[in-house]
Amino acid sequence: MYSPEISDLFKKLGINIGDSILVSNESVKFEGILMPRPDIGNNNIIVIKRKDGYNVGIRYSGGTKVEKLESRTNEILLPKLHAQANESLKTIHMLYTGGTIGSKVDYITGGVHVLTNPGELLFEVPELQNIANINVKDIMHTFSEDMSHNEWSAIASEVFKSILDGADGVIITHGTDTMHYTAAALSFMIGGLNKPVVLTGAQRSSDRGSSDAFMNLICSAYVAQSDIAEVMICMHEDSSDKNCIAIRGTKARKMHTSRRDAFKPINNLPIARISYTGSIEKLSKYKKANVDVELKLLNKFESRTALIKAYPNSDPSIIDYYVKKGCKGIILEGTGLGHLPIETKSNGYSWLSHVKDAITSGVVVGITSQCIYGRVDYKVYSAGRLLHESGAVYCEDMTPEVAYVKLGVLLGNYDSNKAKNMLNVDISGEITERSEFDF
Amino acid sequence: MYSPEISDLFKKLGINIGDSILVSNESVKFEGILMPRPDIGNNNIIVIKRKDGYNVGIRYSGGTKVEKLESRTNEILLPKLHAQANESLKTIHMLYTGGTIGSKVDYITGGVHVLTNPGELLFEVPELQNIANINVKDIMHTFSEDMSHNEWSAIASEVFKSILDGADGVIITHGTDTMHYTAAALSFMIGGLNKPVVLTGAQRSSDRGSSDAFMNLICSAYVAQSDIAEVMICMHEDSSDKNCIAIRGTKARKMHTSRRDAFKPINNLPIARISYTGSIEKLSKYKKANVDVELKLLNKFESRTALIKAYPNSDPSIIDYYVKKGCKGIILEGTGLGHLPIETKSNGYSWLSHVKDAITSGVVVGITSQCIYGRVDYKVYSAGRLLHESGAVYCEDMTPEVAYVKLGVLLGNYDSNKAKNMLNVDISGEITERSEFDF
Repeated sequence: MYSPEISDLFKKLGINIGDSILVSNESVKFEGILMPRPDIGNNNIIVIKRKDGYNVGIRYSGGTKVEKLESRTNEILLPKLHAQANESLKTIHMLYTGGTIGSKVDYITGGVHVLTNPGELLFEVPELQNIANINVKDIMHTFSEDMSHNEWSAIASEVFKSILDGADGVIITHGTDTMHYTAAALSFMIGGLNKPVVLTGAQRSSDRGSSDAFMNLICSAYVAQSDIAEVMICMHEDSSDKNCIAIRGTKARKMHTSRRDAFKPINNLPIARISYTGSIEKLSKYKKANVDVELKLLNKFESRTALIKAYPNSDPSIIDYYVKKGCKGIILEGTGLGHLPIETKSNGYSWLSHVKDAITSGVVVGITSQCIYGRVDYKVYSAGRLLHESGAVYCEDMTPEVAYVKLGVLLGNYDSNKAKNMLNVDISGEITERSEFDF
Repeated sequence: MYSPEISDLFKKLGINIGDSILVSNESVKFEGILMPRPDIGNNNIIVIKRKDGYNVGIRYSGGTKVEKLESRTNEILLPKLHAQANESLKTIHMLYTGGTIGSKVDYITGGVHVLTNPGELLFEVPELQNIANINVKDIMHTFSEDMSHNEWSAIASEVFKSILDGADGVIITHGTDTMHYTAAALSFMIGGLNKPVVLTGAQRSSDRGSSDAFMNLICSAYVAQSDIAEVMICMHEDSSDKNCIAIRGTKARKMHTSRRDAFKPINNLPIARISYTGSIEKLSKYKKANVDVELKLLNKFESRTALIKAYPNSDPSIIDYYVKKGCKGIILEGTGLGHLPIETKSNGYSWLSHVKDAITSGVVVGITSQCIYGRVDYKVYSAGRLLHESGAVYCEDMTPEVAYVKLGVLLGNYDSNKAKNMLNVDISGEITERSEFDF
């Protein structure tokens, strides 16, 4: 926060963070974008980012004059680093949604705050201007734990627009907590995708020397102009700063709370390895653009979809609870090959009858495994056979999270019967015939 | 199933599978334990297991005489392979609970059925008799997806008894689906443990050539006589048949639906690597027997404990549902470092207020991460700080499953205040100061 004196002045002049302003005093005169006040240091110094990318601070005193030049623009946030787009480079739209990659550490509290002006990212990674013409769009400021299907739909719609607008690729900066849910949502919400769509983020905020933001952004900018016409997550391959990997959006999961290589492909190889210097090594099959398929936006989502984990002692009446609330689809996280407590002798719980009741009342029920890795199989044990006979859909090698997102999108865009029939049919690489991976 | 003719005869004579019988016809006479009829082949042949371990089949005809010698004994199932215990070997109690390791494949249906006579295991792995004197106790026949806290308590009580009876170590054969839940339960339910307690199982049933049962049992028999006084899971280290690893009972998780190396240590190194030939390589610190600490059984469990996963769009009123049902403890699976949707703008969901209400009404709430690997940390983001301020306990580097089992055991044996205070204090290796592992 700026000092009360400065804050009052900004209020009077209608100036907000991100606006273009002119600041002058007896000896100097600076024009640029008003930056948020760092959390430590003198709060009586106005910080602006000049067109050349440098931040300058001007001490505020009686003689300081401040003038508002232009309001912050939400669409294209930054003046182009080059006056004109470099015609030899491709054009990438970078959609900013919030998250650590656009955050600053408060060194006093140790906490992380969202950037007010995501365009700062471009100044922090000037290498990007040599890789592509990058247009930053500020579409929302949301921590990823607060993302819902409405945000997924909005992002899908922006991606759709960007591609129609002629972008060669799209990068979405996103908080990491639920990035894999959003990646799955975009994979199912955009049909006939013909450009790379790359989600990236950071496990450490971009103003820290140890941040993974720089390499993640640079590698994303390379893979966003490749021939891979899929939704991907591009993050560190390991804890070194050597390579990133692009993981299929329907086969990714955040598997560590803090490591920079937190995202792992599940039941799949990464699509590609991308080096800091721009080489792209393809590691598995991928989809290329198909001009015969029409780009389609299917961004509705049935919010009355639930993800329920079964565990020892868990009471199956939780299913009834969701059915009573009007739930249209349920993904169950079973154990092992996709089992639920069928005959718990000591407490009389039987998930089977509750699953049957839900299905009878028209709810689509899918079965996945909390093992995360591997494939469910109803044929091996009686628990699986009974659940399958009752009409539950075994979700092959999808993670619980991907099955949940897929069912929500299917129920949002189709009727229950069609949704049920499509649940274990591959749409966007989420089901593989044979899982190939290291785990 | 045996033929109707044989079944009728058995019924008339009061003979059940597992009983000792004498079968004779004109030319031969065999004494042994009646085995279940294999699912394929001639169902008019009686199969008995002789004292030498071999199965023989006698075709049933008019001249066949059958006599019951002794009923199946449930405690010590098998005649000792040696007439007397080998005094140079240690004594291990093997508690049979059910699961694939004691199962047979039905080659027609492809399904797996539980063995009627778990003692068969010993005959299938004759090497065991050279490693230890093994007493098999048949304590239950339960698939692991059907295990509840009542079974955990019963197993804990049997382990306790075995140790008091002078066993040098205990092996528990168990279905793999929820083996890690049971391992955690035993770790918390037995205080002052002074012997190795080893859970093992199989991903493929023991009558298949590719079964992992043999090596898992053999390695378990070695580590069950080591100086490691902890509850462990002993299963394959990788997909070869070279080594098993012993994983701490509070740091294990089934991470694959079908691979033989499905169990992985989480946020920890394995305790030891055990070879087929009996060498034990210690890989990390472990607890040895401490004669100054009294062996204690704390096998109560508060069944009104819930495990709830938060995910995008998830409705926090699920917390109210559990509180209304009288829930005493809730473990939340948050995202990333332990976050929940705090301010979902588009649908108005805020988990924070529901967590606060639960805590106010006396429920103990713990926060873990669905990332599985890594440690939760409330200090980095505002979501964490707010949840922590509300009184939620951040569960360090425990998996959601272990935190759930721990909270249930704590609430079963202590009052809420003590349970809350102990939740993020290490009891049985479940919390490490610094997580050491490959992930």
